[in-house]
Amino acid sequence: MNRKAMEPYQFTATQALVKFKDGSLTVEEYARSLLSRIKKRDDAVGAWAYLNPEYVIRQAKQLDSIPHERRGPLHGVALASADSSLDMPTQHNSPIYEGDEPKVDAAVVATLRHAGVLILGKTTTTEFASTATGPKTRNPHDATRTPGGSSSGSAAAVADFQAPIALGSQTGGSTIRPGSFNGIFAFKPTWNAISREGVKIYSLNLDTVGFFARNVEDLQLLADIFALEDDDIPRQADFSIKGSKFALLKTMAWPQAGPGTAAALEAGAKLLRDHGAEVEEIELPPEFNRMPEWHGVILDSDARATFLPEYRIAKDKLTSLLVEHVENTSRISRAAQLKAFDGVAALRPVIDKTAGKYTAVLTPSVVDEAPVGIEFTGSPAFNKIWTALHVPVVNVPGFRGENGMPVGLSLVAPRYRDRHLLVVSKAVGEIFQAEGGWQTGSPG
Amino acid sequence: MNRKAMEPYQFTATQALVKFKDGSLTVEEYARSLLSRIKKRDDAVGAWAYLNPEYVIRQAKQLDSIPHERRGPLHGVALASADSSLDMPTQHNSPIYEGDEPKVDAAVVATLRHAGVLILGKTTTTEFASTATGPKTRNPHDATRTPGGSSSGSAAAVADFQAPIALGSQTGGSTIRPGSFNGIFAFKPTWNAISREGVKIYSLNLDTVGFFARNVEDLQLLADIFALEDDDIPRQADFSIKGSKFALLKTMAWPQAGPGTAAALEAGAKLLRDHGAEVEEIELPPEFNRMPEWHGVILDSDARATFLPEYRIAKDKLTSLLVEHVENTSRISRAAQLKAFDGVAALRPVIDKTAGKYTAVLTPSVVDEAPVGIEFTGSPAFNKIWTALHVPVVNVPGFRGENGMPVGLSLVAPRYRDRHLLVVSKAVGEIFQAEGGWQTGSPG
Repeated sequence: MNRKAMEPYQFTATQALVKFKDGSLTVEEYARSLLSRIKKRDDAVGAWAYLNPEYVIRQAKQLDSIPHERRGPLHGVALASADSSLDMPTQHNSPIYEGDEPKVDAAVVATLRHAGVLILGKTTTTEFASTATGPKTRNPHDATRTPGGSSSGSAAAVADFQAPIALGSQTGGSTIRPGSFNGIFAFKPTWNAISREGVKIYSLNLDTVGFFARNVEDLQLLADIFALEDDDIPRQADFSIKGSKFALLKTMAWPQAGPGTAAALEAGAKLLRDHGAEVEEIELPPEFNRMPEWHGVILDSDARATFLPEYRIAKDKLTSLLVEHVENTSRISRAAQLKAFDGVAALRPVIDKTAGKYTAVLTPSVVDEAPVGIEFTGSPAFNKIWTALHVPVVNVPGFRGENGMPVGLSLVAPRYRDRHLLVVSKAVGEIFQAEGGWQTGSPG
Repeated sequence: MNRKAMEPYQFTATQALVKFKDGSLTVEEYARSLLSRIKKRDDAVGAWAYLNPEYVIRQAKQLDSIPHERRGPLHGVALASADSSLDMPTQHNSPIYEGDEPKVDAAVVATLRHAGVLILGKTTTTEFASTATGPKTRNPHDATRTPGGSSSGSAAAVADFQAPIALGSQTGGSTIRPGSFNGIFAFKPTWNAISREGVKIYSLNLDTVGFFARNVEDLQLLADIFALEDDDIPRQADFSIKGSKFALLKTMAWPQAGPGTAAALEAGAKLLRDHGAEVEEIELPPEFNRMPEWHGVILDSDARATFLPEYRIAKDKLTSLLVEHVENTSRISRAAQLKAFDGVAALRPVIDKTAGKYTAVLTPSVVDEAPVGIEFTGSPAFNKIWTALHVPVVNVPGFRGENGMPVGLSLVAPRYRDRHLLVVSKAVGEIFQAEGGWQTGSPG
């Protein structure tokens, strides 16, 4: 891409920050560029649940009026949020909350707002971020296909240059999967490393705040804001793919992998080897085979308590999946619930130890390219295990499936090695993007 | 107490429901009785952070206008809430949120409102429900003493007949301790059995919604509303103290126990034996000795993420304890954090198995009577272990310390045996109240 020809809406967060700092771009100019991009593309993509251009411009002007020395670290960077945020109606995509306007930001939004972001609006999600029918958002790379879910609009907006960074959440695969489907970077940090205050609960034990961006530097900016800190502080300059040692893990979900994912995993491993890394295929101990089942039990039982209030208040307005959670139609006993809870808890230190022996674990992000249709937002088969294990995951884009759609791979590290994982993801991402066949920001 | 002479404000929830049902009491009459009790006692106790009599009367009239067949299961029952609720300013007792008025009820409040409760107002808490300096609330049984914290006002209000039931929360000992200090029943259910949606987070892994009442029947009403269900449904009529087998557990905190608690535990065990139960003193395996330390590590590390937004936005308005959490002044490494997290997780099935061998575990609720002064809200030494283990606990009042103040004992059951625990607590409570020397509802 010719840098001179770049429009402001195309900037990553890191690029926009440079322009604001050197005075070559105002937040208002940037906002107008993004709004005109959104206007042009909204009919095709439909990423937004709520966006008020006047509010965006008002914010932009206000940000421009702040003297340089008092500007926040993310001054002016545009943000798309899948969560509740001040002055915008949040209804969790459910008729129960129609018209509801929370007056307190979610903690994650409040923190970013304080850091100076320009909040564009609220992106679409599935109902209560569940696996229910997807919203009307389409994959920006192929309008016949899903962008994934539940954080559908956030991923589509970032992929389509309607925002450089976006917030999502993951309970099954709601951040990593749309990241892969849209050909962008997606980051699910260690569970509970970032406050989930104010984000609607689905499963307290699984829900994790997630981020989307078109490069790793932008995710690192976000990691700074949220004070993600490993015990050892890794430096990008100290890291090299050459001499690294990756684990290649197909997981128990491998029989579900399609040709796009199979080819991507093979290509990814080859690229890492070509660049001087060792890649060792590993298998997890057999007790990990219960992880998908346990993930389901935890999700169902947590949701049984979570959605009781909505069930009591307006059962008729709740999607059938959520009613089934509350009514415990899968007849999960408390004993089974605790077995899953304790079983997964016991495996967390085991995966930390295993993953800790390697630079990172390379594993599929998705079963394949984004499927055709927007009702079904895709399978989280390759994500659930990591969500339940609470470990950080980055989707690294870089490959294409049989239909030319993006396919990413996941890098996984032990809990609270988020910063290490981002350093590794940056180096791996550069190789995948250069030689894997998919470039984030390419026309698709 | 002469039943004929009872004023409406003295009714338990169960008693009030009977009166509403048979038409001998209107919600408005009941509300006026409570408001006049509150007016009379508020200067002495100071239980309320927010209470608007006009709003209470408006609600009461509205409840009275609902036809009998459309009334909720808790129709008209007065509730004191320590949490955010519609139309009432919530500021977590922090200047950061001054004037903040959330427009969405906490899930627990929304559920109770839908069940028909009359919401009286918001009770006092310590800042962000932390162990910071207590609010201006005084123990209704001795104004020179603390009512305990963090749910100070909720416990004091119930003990002082200003509300029959109240909401609290527990991260260390914030429900069970004030329950004991005020001589009432307090119930900390299994962690995450009730949605914590909308309740300010302190520690995601520890925070538990809690309840106060003057008898167990009222706690059972609440358990119904929140669909607390064991695998086996216990029936009160099937349970008898005679032939039961209790574990007596002094715990690693025993050296901190004062004379009031030592005497109460001995008296409690004797009463159970006198009524035909077996009481066996047990000790936990040595790995449980790390529980207090691990509880502290989990609390500090969770709070490090929880209060980052407030720290970023208004550090100068945050109490020093919370600043220390965010700045990790105790220098807890991620490795230590995970060791505590995984260590406690591994002990949860162990305690379930141990406690499951007995009818319940009888153990101290507090180190002693409520101490003199209102700055220090008392030690949670005997509560932290159970909070971190996620097991349900009931404070059963029934004894007095050396200064005549109430001292309760805790009954503990395995996770998700909440209903069983309530059945046992009811039977035990009747014995303790009749023969232990403290009667809830006595003049103190």
